[in-house]
Amino acid sequence: MRTTIERRDLGPRDVLIEISYAGICHSDIHTVRGEWGAVPYPLTVGHEIVGHVTEVGADVTRHAVGDRVGVGCMVNSCRECANCRAGQEQYCLQGNVGTYASVDRDGTVTQGGYSTHVVVDEDFVLRVPHAIPHEAVAPLLCAGITTYSPLAHWKAGPGTKVAVVGMGGLGHMAVKIAVAMGAEVTVLSQTLGKKDDGLRFGAEDYQATSDPATFEALANTFDLIINTVSASIDVGAYLGLLRLDGTMVNVGAPPEPLPVRVFSLFNNRRSFAGSSIGGIAETQRMLEFCAEHGIAPEVEVVDADAVNDAYERVLSSDVRYRFVIDIDSLR
Amino acid sequence: MRTTIERRDLGPRDVLIEISYAGICHSDIHTVRGEWGAVPYPLTVGHEIVGHVTEVGADVTRHAVGDRVGVGCMVNSCRECANCRAGQEQYCLQGNVGTYASVDRDGTVTQGGYSTHVVVDEDFVLRVPHAIPHEAVAPLLCAGITTYSPLAHWKAGPGTKVAVVGMGGLGHMAVKIAVAMGAEVTVLSQTLGKKDDGLRFGAEDYQATSDPATFEALANTFDLIINTVSASIDVGAYLGLLRLDGTMVNVGAPPEPLPVRVFSLFNNRRSFAGSSIGGIAETQRMLEFCAEHGIAPEVEVVDADAVNDAYERVLSSDVRYRFVIDIDSLR
Repeated sequence: MRTTIERRDLGPRDVLIEISYAGICHSDIHTVRGEWGAVPYPLTVGHEIVGHVTEVGADVTRHAVGDRVGVGCMVNSCRECANCRAGQEQYCLQGNVGTYASVDRDGTVTQGGYSTHVVVDEDFVLRVPHAIPHEAVAPLLCAGITTYSPLAHWKAGPGTKVAVVGMGGLGHMAVKIAVAMGAEVTVLSQTLGKKDDGLRFGAEDYQATSDPATFEALANTFDLIINTVSASIDVGAYLGLLRLDGTMVNVGAPPEPLPVRVFSLFNNRRSFAGSSIGGIAETQRMLEFCAEHGIAPEVEVVDADAVNDAYERVLSSDVRYRFVIDIDSLR
Repeated sequence: MRTTIERRDLGPRDVLIEISYAGICHSDIHTVRGEWGAVPYPLTVGHEIVGHVTEVGADVTRHAVGDRVGVGCMVNSCRECANCRAGQEQYCLQGNVGTYASVDRDGTVTQGGYSTHVVVDEDFVLRVPHAIPHEAVAPLLCAGITTYSPLAHWKAGPGTKVAVVGMGGLGHMAVKIAVAMGAEVTVLSQTLGKKDDGLRFGAEDYQATSDPATFEALANTFDLIINTVSASIDVGAYLGLLRLDGTMVNVGAPPEPLPVRVFSLFNNRRSFAGSSIGGIAETQRMLEFCAEHGIAPEVEVVDADAVNDAYERVLSSDVRYRFVIDIDSLR
């Protein structure tokens, strides 16, 4: 449904962005459908945003009119807590201000990127390197950083074996980034339907999780598992794939608790962890890393009118690998 | 029940140990009662053993007759897998050979330390530094290494805040060791019943987990939580106490799976991990660390006839803090 939303007047540190593309993230669907809790309607979602700066506040120093910029999952944080001071604004102890459906520090409800313009504090606006194709930038701001951050934190690189669970929007970026970091990557997907793509993205192996033999053959193998699946999985079965001191990191968020047998953590001194997007400085590094390594999401561009159909296709895993909305179709 | 068990003839790399004391570990109780699975009876348990060498095989180089030595939870491993080669024999990919109720590499079932003598491969026999009082050594070989290993691995030390959950045999050692490592230690126990002891062992704070206010007051506080409790706990509540990049390590093993909400791992990029005893080289370092820092378990010495009563007291948490059996009472 189209509607008109109000953006705040530019403050001295704000940037006005004319949006070109907005990615469709599974979180958008969870949120608009109220599956993650009550939502303040009317709501515009979208937290994978790319566009150009068309106006800047009086004190803005980081961005200039004409710059190509991006906005991800958050548009503010307290900036004072230990986590903000550590550059990990995503873990702000006051809660970061989400790009949509959050209460901003001025008391208004934030509205996302499925819109023609957005006003964002300059500190939460990213510079986009020239090398990244324009229509492919947006998904980096959520799917890209969400997978880059744990891969960097848990030190994926030469000599490490990384498994990526799920080959959707997040998974395909996890594969490309881990490969670029130098890791040996295996994709674990329900079926072998996207195997050709996985190998093309640089994975050395691709196995079906629907086949129990996969879990035997790959026992005690990986240093790091990035689980991008938000459905419930058998955690113990995946933990069994970790070698000594291996970590399985969930970046997808099933709503119900997952049962974990402590004995499966004892073996090989395994860890089960979570990771949520990334800090602003790290997101900037991720963009530069992707530009340098020629990495971009695989996208299918759709018009604004096609968003509801696109949601259905996301839910049935029928997209390779991320929808982006051409915001010109909204104008 | 007293019985006679057979020990193997000394092989060229074996050491015969005359046992002085054997600690009573909660695992002994789980095992003899069949709570961890079927058990080959008759079975002698006990994997906290201290004694003196009375005979050595022809090729033994590490130990000599008269040496004071200890044996912990394992007496062999494959020595060839990646984990054994990394000095982490406790995580042997073939399964280490437990000190009791395991099948040894010669096909016999291992028998534990509630006995007058034991024959052990020299590589799995520890040297005991002089500074540690004789009756207090045994519990270091399980309770000591089980808590030392994760504290060392996750880098407890000056500037880190460590919480120890549970003030039993393992918990009281975790407190003493973490304090000696230089960490700031908080004990989280069901009640404040052992608070005086906790503070005497060097903890800076001691809070009751039966009081919900504890979980509010200590939210986002700890770098490391060592959970020594084998009963089921509300994992999410404890995870909430971890600060950025904090880890909760289970060293106790509840038999049933624990429900974990992934959202509680997202915040602060938390990890939930397991740790099992420690490698042989690390166990030796632990003994030397304890000697150097004047750390020893608090023990109550009992005669062999009192073991069943002691078990009941362990189960009702009525011991400060570890029973050791005076093996002379068996002779």
